[in-house]
Amino acid sequence: MLAEVLAEAAARVEAALDRYLGPEAGPPRLVEAMRYSLLGGGKRLRPFLVLSAARLCGGDPEAALPAACAVEMVHTYSLIHDDLPAMDDDDLRRGRPTNHRVFGEAMAILAGDALLTLAFEVMGEMARDPRVGPERTARAVVELARAAGPAGMVGGQVLDLEWEGRQAGPAELEAIHSRKTGALFAGCLRIGGIVAGAGPEELAALTEYARHFGLAYQIQDDILDVVGDPGVMGKAAGSDQRRDKLTYVRLYGLEGARQWAREQARLAAKALAPFGDRARHLVELVEYVVARER
Amino acid sequence: MLAEVLAEAAARVEAALDRYLGPEAGPPRLVEAMRYSLLGGGKRLRPFLVLSAARLCGGDPEAALPAACAVEMVHTYSLIHDDLPAMDDDDLRRGRPTNHRVFGEAMAILAGDALLTLAFEVMGEMARDPRVGPERTARAVVELARAAGPAGMVGGQVLDLEWEGRQAGPAELEAIHSRKTGALFAGCLRIGGIVAGAGPEELAALTEYARHFGLAYQIQDDILDVVGDPGVMGKAAGSDQRRDKLTYVRLYGLEGARQWAREQARLAAKALAPFGDRARHLVELVEYVVARER
Repeated sequence: MLAEVLAEAAARVEAALDRYLGPEAGPPRLVEAMRYSLLGGGKRLRPFLVLSAARLCGGDPEAALPAACAVEMVHTYSLIHDDLPAMDDDDLRRGRPTNHRVFGEAMAILAGDALLTLAFEVMGEMARDPRVGPERTARAVVELARAAGPAGMVGGQVLDLEWEGRQAGPAELEAIHSRKTGALFAGCLRIGGIVAGAGPEELAALTEYARHFGLAYQIQDDILDVVGDPGVMGKAAGSDQRRDKLTYVRLYGLEGARQWAREQARLAAKALAPFGDRARHLVELVEYVVARER
Repeated sequence: MLAEVLAEAAARVEAALDRYLGPEAGPPRLVEAMRYSLLGGGKRLRPFLVLSAARLCGGDPEAALPAACAVEMVHTYSLIHDDLPAMDDDDLRRGRPTNHRVFGEAMAILAGDALLTLAFEVMGEMARDPRVGPERTARAVVELARAAGPAGMVGGQVLDLEWEGRQAGPAELEAIHSRKTGALFAGCLRIGGIVAGAGPEELAALTEYARHFGLAYQIQDDILDVVGDPGVMGKAAGSDQRRDKLTYVRLYGLEGARQWAREQARLAAKALAPFGDRARHLVELVEYVVARER
């Protein structure tokens, strides 16, 4: 059962994240702000992608746990910064007040900076694990940085802000999302593979899966902004519409978007065909993603 | 001559930074914002520390150039974020409008995020250089992350904000600065050593030098805030006083602070005695730092 596997992985990631942010991690108020967002629930999809890719490529998922934590730290930092008044100016995230609403803007900026930096510390420390070693670790560091950096996630957020309220088309939407959410998803799968010693063909298949997975995820996100239940989602619905944001629903209509999400899920599953039945959790995951309600 | 050596290193670092931020690095406006702050002058002290430590430990400074660029990216990101309205709210930096005054707050936050992330990409890529290799690279990544993260630079900025306008003593001032500026200085010297394959004794000597170097630098910074010429410094003097910030000048008086800075320079030089004459540039550097006017 996917739900059980997801929950089990989330619990292990949660416990590891908790250990990384003990009292010695930094000044108490900073650590509190980091913990508030990092340990504030969430589906832990990205860590699950790392762990699943590592397992799929024959690695020990336990050895990939630091990498799984690192990508979640990067994801969390991006949410904290995206929510800031100067950016999306959101008050709610996962049903709770956003980081800057609780800790103030300065602390929220710094908590994000600290999580991003800690991610690379945690990632770099994998080098001492003989199951991973320095060579794969250094590659994983570069992979994470590229996925999250100016050509990846940060670049996507820039494009997103630049196109807000302007007349964008499918090409722009694809350019935004492939960077803003797609790059980190791809990074997760590739990092899991790299940590497990995957070869070029395996990495290519994981990357192809990630591309369709990311699209499926984003389309469903856009659908949920229109039809989602705010109580279930933990945030207000309709915020994309209010901001006049280009979404896949605006582009293709609700039914068109639903069809396209299912098509992406199909292509994602197909990319993992070479792995056979071992890939079933990742196949189920993308099916879950297009069926999810939050 | 120190001035020549400094200028030569700065030129090499500047050229390398310029290459890292070509048109393919990310969306044009983001790259422009990153370049504005990264290539906006500055003494390039931190890269010089990296290169000098590498040379001192028998390494090829050319092999340490990516690491030197990485620390400068981290330093620059911290300046951009520190200047933000939610933080120190500064309008001028190195004689030019601060990043958010030119590119807006959202872009300044993202340019900082992007520089921090790019630093780890550049650092991680050193693994493929046979003069460095993956083992030293992974250690350097961890070193940079610890120096810059919640227990280091970001933690120091948090303490600095928390103590602003409150009754702090020498212990708090030391706690703030050892993290806020000291940790990255120490990181620079240790990273240079690590890249060059330094042993534990060499790293210990570099760390001891860094500790006194950092203090000397900070004391001189505080002195310049009181006596500095705004035209030379490129920023308004007296801003610490206006903010009621605790400084070494407030703690020990102007003459006391000057004496203490010189004492730190002496101790820094002493820490490098085992290296003999090969350490002369780093000895001259700390003497320059306590004599500098900006």
